[in-house]
Amino acid sequence: MPIERRLVAVRALMAEAGYDALIVPRADEYLGEYLPAHSERLRWVSGFAGSAGVVVILPDRAAIFVDGRYTVQVRHQVPETLYEYHHLLDEPPVQWLVQQLPAGAVIAVEPRIHTLNWYRDAQSTFCEAELVLKATDRNPIDSCWQDRPAPEVSPVILLDDAYTGESSDRKRRRIAARVAEQGADAALIFAIDSVSWLLNIRGTDVPMTPVVQSLAILESDGRVTLLVDERRIPEGFAAHVGEGVEVLPETRAAEILARYGGKTVLADPHTANAWSQLSLEAGGATLLAGDDPVLLPKACKNAVEIAGTRRAHIRDAVAKITFLCWLDAEVDAGRLHDEAVLADRLLSLRQEGEYFHTSSFDTISAAGENAAMCHYNHRNAEPASLPSNSVYLVDSGGQYTDGTTDITRTVAIGDPGPDIRRMYTLVLKGNIALSSVRFPVGTSGTQLDILARQFLWQQGFDYDHGTGHGGGTFLSVHEAPQRIGKNPSSVALRPGMILSNEPGYYRDGQFGIRCENLVVIRESEPGGTQETPMLEFDTLTLVPFDNRLLDMSLMSASEIDWLDKYHRRVLQEVGPRLKTETLEWLQRATRPLAK
Amino acid sequence: MPIERRLVAVRALMAEAGYDALIVPRADEYLGEYLPAHSERLRWVSGFAGSAGVVVILPDRAAIFVDGRYTVQVRHQVPETLYEYHHLLDEPPVQWLVQQLPAGAVIAVEPRIHTLNWYRDAQSTFCEAELVLKATDRNPIDSCWQDRPAPEVSPVILLDDAYTGESSDRKRRRIAARVAEQGADAALIFAIDSVSWLLNIRGTDVPMTPVVQSLAILESDGRVTLLVDERRIPEGFAAHVGEGVEVLPETRAAEILARYGGKTVLADPHTANAWSQLSLEAGGATLLAGDDPVLLPKACKNAVEIAGTRRAHIRDAVAKITFLCWLDAEVDAGRLHDEAVLADRLLSLRQEGEYFHTSSFDTISAAGENAAMCHYNHRNAEPASLPSNSVYLVDSGGQYTDGTTDITRTVAIGDPGPDIRRMYTLVLKGNIALSSVRFPVGTSGTQLDILARQFLWQQGFDYDHGTGHGGGTFLSVHEAPQRIGKNPSSVALRPGMILSNEPGYYRDGQFGIRCENLVVIRESEPGGTQETPMLEFDTLTLVPFDNRLLDMSLMSASEIDWLDKYHRRVLQEVGPRLKTETLEWLQRATRPLAK
Repeated sequence: MPIERRLVAVRALMAEAGYDALIVPRADEYLGEYLPAHSERLRWVSGFAGSAGVVVILPDRAAIFVDGRYTVQVRHQVPETLYEYHHLLDEPPVQWLVQQLPAGAVIAVEPRIHTLNWYRDAQSTFCEAELVLKATDRNPIDSCWQDRPAPEVSPVILLDDAYTGESSDRKRRRIAARVAEQGADAALIFAIDSVSWLLNIRGTDVPMTPVVQSLAILESDGRVTLLVDERRIPEGFAAHVGEGVEVLPETRAAEILARYGGKTVLADPHTANAWSQLSLEAGGATLLAGDDPVLLPKACKNAVEIAGTRRAHIRDAVAKITFLCWLDAEVDAGRLHDEAVLADRLLSLRQEGEYFHTSSFDTISAAGENAAMCHYNHRNAEPASLPSNSVYLVDSGGQYTDGTTDITRTVAIGDPGPDIRRMYTLVLKGNIALSSVRFPVGTSGTQLDILARQFLWQQGFDYDHGTGHGGGTFLSVHEAPQRIGKNPSSVALRPGMILSNEPGYYRDGQFGIRCENLVVIRESEPGGTQETPMLEFDTLTLVPFDNRLLDMSLMSASEIDWLDKYHRRVLQEVGPRLKTETLEWLQRATRPLAK
Repeated sequence: MPIERRLVAVRALMAEAGYDALIVPRADEYLGEYLPAHSERLRWVSGFAGSAGVVVILPDRAAIFVDGRYTVQVRHQVPETLYEYHHLLDEPPVQWLVQQLPAGAVIAVEPRIHTLNWYRDAQSTFCEAELVLKATDRNPIDSCWQDRPAPEVSPVILLDDAYTGESSDRKRRRIAARVAEQGADAALIFAIDSVSWLLNIRGTDVPMTPVVQSLAILESDGRVTLLVDERRIPEGFAAHVGEGVEVLPETRAAEILARYGGKTVLADPHTANAWSQLSLEAGGATLLAGDDPVLLPKACKNAVEIAGTRRAHIRDAVAKITFLCWLDAEVDAGRLHDEAVLADRLLSLRQEGEYFHTSSFDTISAAGENAAMCHYNHRNAEPASLPSNSVYLVDSGGQYTDGTTDITRTVAIGDPGPDIRRMYTLVLKGNIALSSVRFPVGTSGTQLDILARQFLWQQGFDYDHGTGHGGGTFLSVHEAPQRIGKNPSSVALRPGMILSNEPGYYRDGQFGIRCENLVVIRESEPGGTQETPMLEFDTLTLVPFDNRLLDMSLMSASEIDWLDKYHRRVLQEVGPRLKTETLEWLQRATRPLAK
């Protein structure tokens, strides 16, 4: 069915229901980063395949709202005869609707696919404009989507304590005690990675992130009600999760949430969907707005998780170093492959390693000027071939049973020239400065961000993205609450948190550079004179930076020392696992720079 | 009358009025940093002379709440037989009262001497605890304070455009336009430095800050109603401020505020007192909570203000350098003066300079271990004499007609040894790093703070205060909204803002170090390759740092270069104004370190 006919069907249904507008965000009822195929409603109704966007359908018009990453892509994928294009942030859909609709108009919203926070803001904006927000019970798209794929019924994976380092039973009791301290009888554990971490389970429900799409309610005594398709529960589940976990079908969610009448339930209005919290309230529960109580315990990795992550990084380094060695040889032989070939090669090398499941996000394989687009995806157009004298940027990662990786390397192709070398060196200096910092307990990522930018700033340059995001262990590669960036954050960095360290530089239409390692926070060895307990970063990623891209005149002695030491560590830890040819390449790539 | 009898009198009045508690903060109705003598109610009732504190009087007990700066001083000044001592931040008075009082108890609060924000928080806390907040019309202390000094009726000073760079008329119209943009009919200009800046007036009402204690209401067309004792208005005032300024006696404030019924009035609940806003509301006005509209225009100094500040800093440097030269000679001659003698000498040297009015804050003149107390005041106890092998720290500043200064220098007395030299060098390196930064438009002080701390952090040290505060021109030496510190701030730094740059290090019972310059923000010269508009700091303070305190092994070549260049500038700009002996001293003190 072409998009035009799909719109006709949706509009017919809207007319019947009396809706003057329908809002369709790219989201499902679990509000995760990735969607299963049967939840790609926005794609079905518009053709848009990007990772973020909102469609608004009116009786005689429709509009699609995307951010700066997708302004080009949306024109390729979404017919301009059917949709107006708008900027998601400059002209948000809610404000746009207020401009378009007359007083009294009815706007249909599905409360399962919006956070409560968004929902309440929208409701109040519409109310002021005398518009009516109508919560739909069933999503109108679903009624029109005739060939909608059925949800997969894949078995839940039970992740052994050898990888998690803490039984679900202990996690549940530990976190339940914090819920009780806050004066709540129970907590809605909504984020799917929180649920998966809490119960030590994983799944193949969505691409890239090994979560189980499910909903949990944690009682203040540690018991959990898990709402998930019961057919997915494997043998041994009860023994795995320990006493006090009741599995009920997700179809009974409304009934279960209504049981909390008279109780106080902690829920995070910024991350949990409106429907679950409105259902709790409708059942008579009192909502206590607060952070997801799993967030911080999950962010602070234990020794077993950190050890597993280190092992995963070594295997990941074997794949990545083998790839870089191969790439050099191919370029030397004059074979300037295209971005798709390169991405596929890297993936197949990762697949050769033990415990590999999937990529941890869509690989960014970007040649020359394409690297100037931070979120480039070679699948959105004809993949480009490597340029002769520029750089190749590859940002990729893997999901392993024992950890999650995320690494960006920028590689010289031919002779990129002094300008690119200068910019590369300024970026790498930022990475080194951030890697080397020590900071007192209580410091936030906002305070550290400048370390990665200072050398670019000094020369009048900057990059328009954060410096570091949190990361999970065999979970989401993007994990809250820790981050390093310009935006104010009061979240203190804590031992065990994993973060990326990824300064970059992008020159539109010319080239892009990013140097990304994952790091884990640890306590500093208290020195002889140290007065304040300090934290520091320990680098997890073990792949050489491309020394051919350095402008040595910009490197200080201590930066050269850092780089040489890092490369020595890479050689020692990864070298023994490489094939001879690759090892020889690594020896050359890590040759010390200090005189 | 001894304090005990004062308390008896206050309690008698409380009993008569039916109050179970009375809250007395150290504040007057203008909520400024300094109080005139007739508003020192807390001192009268308790004996406490510190700059911040709260007294709570109950029928049979009383308590005084002070912060970490004053835990020693409070025990000296406030009789323990009459007052319990509590920590102002760890155990705030409002929460403490909730613990002490039975339901139904009445707590008297004077809404003129609290912000609306504090008042509403207190009201809601008391309400939840079933306590009654009773707003007093007249402060009960005033009724008991028989020998209370009369307010001074000093003439208002008209500050010439040659110093302000912008007429009041233009300021008022420019800011009124912003008030109108926010949808308000008028704005309450409450902060006394805002009122003084807006009308280009100054006064001698309080120590240290040349403000006129008064209240202004700015209409959205630029007219102002100024509430102030009319006897203080000098000849030429009308011509000075321009058309549209009506002066009315402050005693008519209630009546004037009641005129705004039906109007929307912008007011800042975090800085303006509760009384003024409650009076507006009582008169039927709608309050629009927002930042004081004068704050940002006042913070961004114009070219005339910056030029004046530079001149003031040169005169201030003459005094300070003359002082440092004299100090060295005295120490060499074995005359180890006490802190009071040193502070007085510095003040008298400042007084010799042109356009000097007063100190801009209480001088911190701290010898050896006393310097470890960040807010040390030698007047609170027996002043100490200079130690033989340690440091002397002096933090002081002046109010000049053309600008306000604030400078800290830490000076070697004898041979302070390698430990102090190491710590001094780490502090100075932080000062240099912050001085040298370039940063894009939109950057906040939170982002920059780490530059000043990084070298201390790297060795396991830190300091427990902010790195930089805003500063005025012939106004308050502490000026919002700009600051540099750990606490999250989203205030973007802008050209023309003056800030202090003052990292430090304090070792309890041993020594203290602080290196403080004032800087002004300017736009960076756009270089050949610069892509992003960048800002940078230009140093205003022109006094050498003590090179005898450097551990040269910790200094990088670029830091030595910065210091030599700074010292060359000091010599060039201040040298020609010094007496021969002092110039010779300065030549030695600024001798280049680079080989």
